[in-house]
Amino acid sequence: MILTVTLNTALDITYRVPRLRPHTGHRVTEVTERPGGKGINVARVLAALGHHTTVTGFAGGVTGTVVRELLAADEPARAPGRITDALVPIAGSTRRTLGVVDTASGDTTQLNEAGPAVTGAEWAAFMDAYARLLREASAVALCGSLPPGVPVGTYAQLIREARTAGVPTLLDTSGEPLRRGVAARPDIVKPNAEELAGLTGSTEPLRAARDARRRGARAVAASLGADGLLAITAQGAWRAVPPERLKGNPTGAGDAAVAGLLSGLVDEVPWPERIARAVALSAAAVRAPAAGEFDPAVYAELLGRIEVTEHPTAL
Amino acid sequence: MILTVTLNTALDITYRVPRLRPHTGHRVTEVTERPGGKGINVARVLAALGHHTTVTGFAGGVTGTVVRELLAADEPARAPGRITDALVPIAGSTRRTLGVVDTASGDTTQLNEAGPAVTGAEWAAFMDAYARLLREASAVALCGSLPPGVPVGTYAQLIREARTAGVPTLLDTSGEPLRRGVAARPDIVKPNAEELAGLTGSTEPLRAARDARRRGARAVAASLGADGLLAITAQGAWRAVPPERLKGNPTGAGDAAVAGLLSGLVDEVPWPERIARAVALSAAAVRAPAAGEFDPAVYAELLGRIEVTEHPTAL
Repeated sequence: MILTVTLNTALDITYRVPRLRPHTGHRVTEVTERPGGKGINVARVLAALGHHTTVTGFAGGVTGTVVRELLAADEPARAPGRITDALVPIAGSTRRTLGVVDTASGDTTQLNEAGPAVTGAEWAAFMDAYARLLREASAVALCGSLPPGVPVGTYAQLIREARTAGVPTLLDTSGEPLRRGVAARPDIVKPNAEELAGLTGSTEPLRAARDARRRGARAVAASLGADGLLAITAQGAWRAVPPERLKGNPTGAGDAAVAGLLSGLVDEVPWPERIARAVALSAAAVRAPAAGEFDPAVYAELLGRIEVTEHPTAL
Repeated sequence: MILTVTLNTALDITYRVPRLRPHTGHRVTEVTERPGGKGINVARVLAALGHHTTVTGFAGGVTGTVVRELLAADEPARAPGRITDALVPIAGSTRRTLGVVDTASGDTTQLNEAGPAVTGAEWAAFMDAYARLLREASAVALCGSLPPGVPVGTYAQLIREARTAGVPTLLDTSGEPLRRGVAARPDIVKPNAEELAGLTGSTEPLRAARDARRRGARAVAASLGADGLLAITAQGAWRAVPPERLKGNPTGAGDAAVAGLLSGLVDEVPWPERIARAVALSAAAVRAPAAGEFDPAVYAELLGRIEVTEHPTAL
């Protein structure tokens, strides 16, 4: 199975309102809830692709209960893959992340709670669970922000544990946790252009991705939004671009790309095919009406039309 | 005891953000939750005044569980009065109401979910509970909006039931439920200027309040924001005004006024004293740092300085 780690899981709530006007009252016309946090989003895409996936991280409070119930309820619809819930219970409450969609403009205003404090005992329980889960894992993805109180070097520690267990790692985070994580030599990092610039100080993606490799990442897959994905690896450098500019909701496109990279990693396909999967899944996610969903038929159609070019200057 | 009915209870959530900018992302710096809905807010003020109060209405889902837990946790701090939870369980989920406070400006953006659908069997269970609770009640307050699917004439029905049981009623709602309710001859209605204008078509409060009495209300206590409160009753007409313009958070001021009116009703004090209590409680609520709270010492001090004048032209 593929293991995804989401230390700061969330209950993703979406409100639709006719028009968001600050400092006035609004009636919410539609409420939807889904289990959230990057690693959980990645797991949902992996399951839809047919990969058995286990999610771990923390869940607590009534929001944590709802997250776990929604994960369990979601599962039967998620054939052919399966999601196994290995979230570690905590006393604090799982955070909510609220997206307020203005139905007039289609734009979203995002309000993210910080997340619960994690105690030392809870952290120890997680590390036990992580070590046990690594024994069954073909790859592990470390995704998203750290909850308050979790040490900033945590991803570096989790990457070292995975290497000791012989499990390849993908890191998708930002800021100081990314900087520390990269130094621990993960197999793949998947920053977007902004995260890459934050890590390296360079806003030129090719230069920045090469710098990220020098800092320790064995491969860098940089997602460049509508410009596709740039991969700098030990085997070579490639860029994959979507067949056309896609209109839609970019929420979840990055998580879909991570799922594509992981899928290609465990299926042991070459890098050009991995990044083609990532870009096709991203594009399919952008096109889907609900954030984080995708239509497998749209994915299959797009996959055949992704252009991958080798980047001779990159190494 | 005083009975308050809140058919559309809520989990009131407050988010603080440094500055609300539509269509961008925000980290929420502080999250607070409290049991909400007008009748529950009224009960909290009544309990702080020393009145034993029972809350009924509906509660369901995980949000309903949180509302009940917060009500129970709140109780010991609420001496000398006591709040008894007589909420009727339902299958649907109690709604959330979210206030997003922009800490730069102090302004609040409000997002209110609609509330759960109530089944026929749940409604029958509520009516049984209501009839039973009326036997112990010295007064009943019917507060706030109706959840989806509850008939618009519901407050009229609850007013008739209370009259049959010999229990005086106070109605605080808006729109068509207010119009139907007033026609059932409640003892007191407490509209604000906007609700009164919606009911009567007149934006002149004195004229509109007299019209509301002709439509069936035995007494009208119209809350006019910073201009205080206007009461048109069978015993006479009065206006009470706060001693000075108050700065603060107006959320909960209307519910505090309802508590003042009910307190005066069950203590059988004359109308000038009732509206003085209502205005002093409203003003104390505006001054309090947290929405819906008040400092008893501030209330006592303000109560001595409320000016009540008789309104000879009103009848």
